[in-house]
Amino acid sequence: MIVGVLGGGQLGRMLALAGYPLGLQFRIYDVVPEAPAEHVAEFLQGDFDDESRLEEFSRGLTVATYEFENVPVRAAEFVASRVTLHPAPRALAVCQDRLAEKTLAAQLVIPSAKFEAVESASDLAAAAARIGFPCMLKTRRLGYDGKGQAVLREPVEVAAAWQGIQAAPAIVEQFVAFEREVSLIAVRSASGECAFYPLVENMHRGGILRETRAPAPGLEPELQALAESHAARVLEELQYVGTLAIEFFERGGELLLNEMAPRVHNSGHWTIEGAATSQFENHIRAILGWPLGPTAAVGRSHMFNIIGAAPNTPALLAVPGAHVHLYGKSPRPGRKLGHVTLWNELDEHDRRIEAVRSLIANA
Amino acid sequence: MIVGVLGGGQLGRMLALAGYPLGLQFRIYDVVPEAPAEHVAEFLQGDFDDESRLEEFSRGLTVATYEFENVPVRAAEFVASRVTLHPAPRALAVCQDRLAEKTLAAQLVIPSAKFEAVESASDLAAAAARIGFPCMLKTRRLGYDGKGQAVLREPVEVAAAWQGIQAAPAIVEQFVAFEREVSLIAVRSASGECAFYPLVENMHRGGILRETRAPAPGLEPELQALAESHAARVLEELQYVGTLAIEFFERGGELLLNEMAPRVHNSGHWTIEGAATSQFENHIRAILGWPLGPTAAVGRSHMFNIIGAAPNTPALLAVPGAHVHLYGKSPRPGRKLGHVTLWNELDEHDRRIEAVRSLIANA
Repeated sequence: MIVGVLGGGQLGRMLALAGYPLGLQFRIYDVVPEAPAEHVAEFLQGDFDDESRLEEFSRGLTVATYEFENVPVRAAEFVASRVTLHPAPRALAVCQDRLAEKTLAAQLVIPSAKFEAVESASDLAAAAARIGFPCMLKTRRLGYDGKGQAVLREPVEVAAAWQGIQAAPAIVEQFVAFEREVSLIAVRSASGECAFYPLVENMHRGGILRETRAPAPGLEPELQALAESHAARVLEELQYVGTLAIEFFERGGELLLNEMAPRVHNSGHWTIEGAATSQFENHIRAILGWPLGPTAAVGRSHMFNIIGAAPNTPALLAVPGAHVHLYGKSPRPGRKLGHVTLWNELDEHDRRIEAVRSLIANA
Repeated sequence: MIVGVLGGGQLGRMLALAGYPLGLQFRIYDVVPEAPAEHVAEFLQGDFDDESRLEEFSRGLTVATYEFENVPVRAAEFVASRVTLHPAPRALAVCQDRLAEKTLAAQLVIPSAKFEAVESASDLAAAAARIGFPCMLKTRRLGYDGKGQAVLREPVEVAAAWQGIQAAPAIVEQFVAFEREVSLIAVRSASGECAFYPLVENMHRGGILRETRAPAPGLEPELQALAESHAARVLEELQYVGTLAIEFFERGGELLLNEMAPRVHNSGHWTIEGAATSQFENHIRAILGWPLGPTAAVGRSHMFNIIGAAPNTPALLAVPGAHVHLYGKSPRPGRKLGHVTLWNELDEHDRRIEAVRSLIANA
């Protein structure tokens, strides 16, 4: 059985590594030649509008999936016309567009920050005035790691912000003074079975995820149940198959949907060591319609992204419970090169967190 | 950094899968073309006496290792003359020869069953008479999974047994009425650091390992300490680098060395899910001189070999806590096609063990 993955980044690489033990083979498709997944699987390089190359990719696959949300919907639809593709192109289309995402949330009665769509500087000025300052301007598409976003503190900043996003279709959103960002990794199998990992707490800096604590410290069963009920409605509405990540702002016991990713997610990397089944294995089980594995956390995990500069691997491995994951990328400022998961059953966790943090030189 | 592995079976495959997260690449060498490791790494096919092919294998490697103990010592020495090879050829030579293995144990004051070397039918008759019946005849070389062994119950069986092993150099060994077989996975890093996994209990049928319980039920700290002290002497004497498996017979609180394997071992597969660091990752850390990871068991694990017939993967995955590992081999009677590790933190473990056992159709 061959699983095809559109996108050959670290997520595709970790999907393949999780799938080999299940006796599967992998075929990876990416536009760039030196992708992280290249060394661990059959690799096809091609553009996303090259239908003959996509045809070649699709041939003989048992199932196809994708590992980043900016695969063009047209390419996904082409592949889906040749072979089963999970999650379906509709999920991709919704998650690629903040307006569609927030509209869906509203329709499913999932709270999110108040918002309006804007298509011009005057739209923006009027919407910002209605929503109130400070507020956030966010492009509808291609936003990730803090790109395509601006904070508007007062009306005079509107024009510059609109130019800053190059007049792209956008939304303006109420600024949420949240207590923390948490995320939920949800999985739905082609059989309809659903599973949810415990909520985790995410720490960003410069718009990039730096660290994840799993489970989220002080996690109450009520908050977990609330997140799962929100996620279950999305999974059901989209008839979603695979892993879905949902980021929430937590504020006073309430969860406001921030954004979703129709794929395995950086805030779920801790599940490789820290959960009974990893998000990668469960994504594969899900798209094959196989039973999902247990999602309970085992002990405490702390995930650190390695960004920009290559780490001192042996020094990291000297911290008991530290597991290093490198993606085979060359260092470049701001680039995610790998991650470390510090896993511990019991004591000394906090001291070791400091040890790893000091060893990670984030560029 | 590229790690070379002599042997492309399931052990080489699992070494590569454990090493990719550390940012390593793998090059595998095997005599047969369709080896389990082929799909997951760079693969070179060649005979073990083909020096130009071994030369090509060695080129540019950071370190080399092997994954089965019947690599000819000459091939290992050739590779070791080109690139660092761990464990060193001497360890391979000792573990390939039951006589050398038991002689080493005796020299290190590690108990094992009473034995004598035999090279002819008359040697055998005389030695068996001295050791007493029943006793075991075992070829010095190429014995695995119960091959090259015979039980001698009375003197009249001597001639047939000697013919049965085709007059190969052998040992005759006292028959040990042991309570159970346990094994220890020991690791020594190139830095000299040592680590030991908890003893596990192995269950054989037809001379083939069928199931491993980890940790061994009722394991007392004294027994673990005894096993570690035996293993530490072997590691030190051989200046061993890598993972070493030692099988013991347990009898009345005593451990008799049965045999050793200079590699990762089937009775250590449970460590992928059931220990803080897997035997595969620790082998790689060891041969690179990197710090070893913690070897503590997390919860209880039960490993089942999948032998002969392909399993019903989705049915196995439906058992909570079951992790399936398939090696990409085609079914054949008596062939190890994969394994299942049932991992559980807490309750219902025994009921689930029965569920998995009933799903594994051993040919």
